[in-house]
Amino acid sequence: MADSRFFPVAGPFTLGQLADIGKATLAPGVDAAALISGVAPLETAGPGDLSFLDNRKYAAAFGSSKAAACVVRDEMVERAPAGMMLLVTKDPYRCYAHIAQAFHPVLAPEPWVAPTAWIDASALVGEGCRLEPGATVLARAEVGRRCRIGANAVIGEGVVIGDDCIIGANVTVSHAILGARVNLYPGVRVGQDGFGFAMGPQGHLKVPQLGRVIIGDDVEVGANSTIDRGAGPDTVIGTGTMIDNLVQIGHNVRLGRGCVMVAQSGISGSTQLGDFVAVAGQAGITGHLRIGTGARVGAQAGVMRDVGPGETVGGSPAVPMVEWLRQSALINKMARKG
Amino acid sequence: MADSRFFPVAGPFTLGQLADIGKATLAPGVDAAALISGVAPLETAGPGDLSFLDNRKYAAAFGSSKAAACVVRDEMVERAPAGMMLLVTKDPYRCYAHIAQAFHPVLAPEPWVAPTAWIDASALVGEGCRLEPGATVLARAEVGRRCRIGANAVIGEGVVIGDDCIIGANVTVSHAILGARVNLYPGVRVGQDGFGFAMGPQGHLKVPQLGRVIIGDDVEVGANSTIDRGAGPDTVIGTGTMIDNLVQIGHNVRLGRGCVMVAQSGISGSTQLGDFVAVAGQAGITGHLRIGTGARVGAQAGVMRDVGPGETVGGSPAVPMVEWLRQSALINKMARKG
Amino acid sequence: MADSRFFPVAGPFTLGQLADIGKATLAPGVDAAALISGVAPLETAGPGDLSFLDNRKYAAAFGSSKAAACVVRDEMVERAPAGMMLLVTKDPYRCYAHIAQAFHPVLAPEPWVAPTAWIDASALVGEGCRLEPGATVLARAEVGRRCRIGANAVIGEGVVIGDDCIIGANVTVSHAILGARVNLYPGVRVGQDGFGFAMGPQGHLKVPQLGRVIIGDDVEVGANSTIDRGAGPDTVIGTGTMIDNLVQIGHNVRLGRGCVMVAQSGISGSTQLGDFVAVAGQAGITGHLRIGTGARVGAQAGVMRDVGPGETVGGSPAVPMVEWLRQSALINKMARKG
Repeated sequence: MADSRFFPVAGPFTLGQLADIGKATLAPGVDAAALISGVAPLETAGPGDLSFLDNRKYAAAFGSSKAAACVVRDEMVERAPAGMMLLVTKDPYRCYAHIAQAFHPVLAPEPWVAPTAWIDASALVGEGCRLEPGATVLARAEVGRRCRIGANAVIGEGVVIGDDCIIGANVTVSHAILGARVNLYPGVRVGQDGFGFAMGPQGHLKVPQLGRVIIGDDVEVGANSTIDRGAGPDTVIGTGTMIDNLVQIGHNVRLGRGCVMVAQSGISGSTQLGDFVAVAGQAGITGHLRIGTGARVGAQAGVMRDVGPGETVGGSPAVPMVEWLRQSALINKMARKG
Repeated sequence: MADSRFFPVAGPFTLGQLADIGKATLAPGVDAAALISGVAPLETAGPGDLSFLDNRKYAAAFGSSKAAACVVRDEMVERAPAGMMLLVTKDPYRCYAHIAQAFHPVLAPEPWVAPTAWIDASALVGEGCRLEPGATVLARAEVGRRCRIGANAVIGEGVVIGDDCIIGANVTVSHAILGARVNLYPGVRVGQDGFGFAMGPQGHLKVPQLGRVIIGDDVEVGANSTIDRGAGPDTVIGTGTMIDNLVQIGHNVRLGRGCVMVAQSGISGSTQLGDFVAVAGQAGITGHLRIGTGARVGAQAGVMRDVGPGETVGGSPAVPMVEWLRQSALINKMARKG
Repeated sequence: MADSRFFPVAGPFTLGQLADIGKATLAPGVDAAALISGVAPLETAGPGDLSFLDNRKYAAAFGSSKAAACVVRDEMVERAPAGMMLLVTKDPYRCYAHIAQAFHPVLAPEPWVAPTAWIDASALVGEGCRLEPGATVLARAEVGRRCRIGANAVIGEGVVIGDDCIIGANVTVSHAILGARVNLYPGVRVGQDGFGFAMGPQGHLKVPQLGRVIIGDDVEVGANSTIDRGAGPDTVIGTGTMIDNLVQIGHNVRLGRGCVMVAQSGISGSTQLGDFVAVAGQAGITGHLRIGTGARVGAQAGVMRDVGPGETVGGSPAVPMVEWLRQSALINKMARKG
């Protein structure tokens, strides 16, 4: 069970209910009326807990788990410890996600404006919002309904925030328009000037950054990530995109729908990504490129050319992943011979 | 036109005025008295807007732009769409920068001390400053005139800040002395302890960090970047240096004048850079090195040796750029053969 | 001498006292009663100052230093300038650390709750704590004794913090339990959701993150670093571990005792490090790996396989360091021939 100090729990649910919620089937002989009171990892789960097995690396933990119930793929059913009740599905992780959400639903915040919060007289804050201590909403900003503005977060002049957004503690947002259900983790910076200046031997001349940041619905941005506003065009983050911690998005960048950017990756100015592009950790993409829909960029890759739809690239400078693996193997072999 | 929600606009200006401001010449036949009301990107510019073309990648957008006027190089004049009024210059980006600054001048802040700001009784804050909600100036700190201290920013004990500085929201500054017109973007950390300890199998022994951070005039530091104070010597950032987001500057590092550090790059302790050194994105420079004036470090490079003045290096470990390109080409070729 | 604006100084001490404090021996003929008033770098030290020489790169600065006294290894004694008083030790850096700590002891904070700080009625704050302006302690959190909570830092619901911790300005902590003497530098983010969702072509499904962050005693975390809470298991940072700036620690990661992570390095989810593992700058370690006790990961390395105890790896993908050096040398040589 999750620590109740931090995670209030709903339920209990019967296994039959959970099978419905997770779109799984009960293994033969499982009692659909058995009660489950929470979810837990394989190692720490106990009676009353449901767990899941997705990555085969954890098959040993599965074999010795004391979980009452577990979500598994068909081929693992045989390896379950005696007495464990199984929910079977093709996608245990997604099934578990649905079930864990049922035990830990995202609730609308308890409305509150802390005495040390600040709302400018010209700002609009929708009904049902929670402004924690030191949360600050500056002139002409508009915050939707049921938003949570974390402690010491700052919503800049004129910013627009949709309904049901979560703005983490110590976040800064300026020059931006956000959709609904956007979740900015603590320390995120959205909307500051892009890195734009005319370089010259006598000094660098600042170029005013006159675009905005437009964020679609259901976007998450990880802790301390930075999204610069456009230089003239806007910076755009498509609906459903997931951005991890310490990621850098340069000015004028456009991410399509459902993109994934893993921690410490970065994209330079004016590059455009299609939908569902995945960029792995510490990878970098230089400016003014186009990365096609469904493309994948490997960890620590350095992309300096356009990438076609569905292509997978790796290495620095990045090449098609199969070539990069061949290069790595070849160098390895030659160096050993040498 | 830039979104008036975020960007108030000066002007209008005549094309003749703008040619003077941008040090450009009007193409033959252009009406110097024509009025321009703002700047905009090629794709979205309309009647009354001025745009610019610098990167040839955007020649197609230029050809179909509805901008009333555009700043271009001589060789692009022929390719302008009918009716577009042209300003001609050798450096369209710099020319555009001057013009955009005229439409969007940086104004002194409207003086204000928000009721939830905090100024210690022993601190000095110059005339004309704006302290937004939650801005905090601790004991004995000295803030110059016409500074903007963003919401929930924290100026530590004894810190000195020059005139006309912009300290972004949620910034932290300690143990530092800043020049004039320094711009720290949201979430910047200046002056915390460097990473200094004597390692040992029985535990790591903290070494007191007794230096400061000295920042020259006209320096910009991007969002969530970190500049540690010196261990004994100072960490020094030279006048006119531009630092992008999520950059790390270790203790005792010295950057000369006009250096440029692109996002997610980092410099380890005690390394010294000359003037106008450019470090590209995600590059790293290890400690105790000297990088000569005018040197350039490629994206994702890993510099482990001194770099001479004017030299350009790439790769990890970094070598002269021409060698790195040759290495990359060679590996590519061999792997394809193999 | 360190700038008294920022660093109050204890002492003076006699050289005899300092030799005891630093476990060093006085060179022959040195007056044990000579008074030293502070520490300073070789270049700027003057009469009354003690300095140290650890890295041979600075032998020239040693030779021309005006320091009254200096901590050195035996082999450097001969090269000291005339009149300099020497303390001799096998580990000058550690010796200097002890002496500098004596001149600049870490003092318990002066107790204070700033008028603009916020402590929820259900939170517990121990005696002797200092809460700077805007510091915020939310519901049911428990803060130990003699802690310093920096300006605009946010301690989330239910968080537990041990005695004598330093929580920097603008830090955010949630879903976490911290030991004693933990030092979180400004802008650190601890305890936010890990990057966990079930990817799918129809959209990414959020997986509730139900673990915590457990931090041992005597841990330091550098500015703007991010430590995600576990997905189900906890994220664990072992006692005495030192983490530099802008480091990313994914969910479920476990660091042993005394690990060192240099700036901009990152560890993906569920990877486990033994004790005293050192990870150099900008290195990355992918998920679900095991890195043995005493292992070392080179700068910018990309670790994609388990690393044995005591092993040193480099390159991306990482291989044993000797192989990586051989590979680099080979490529270099071939490209020059080509």
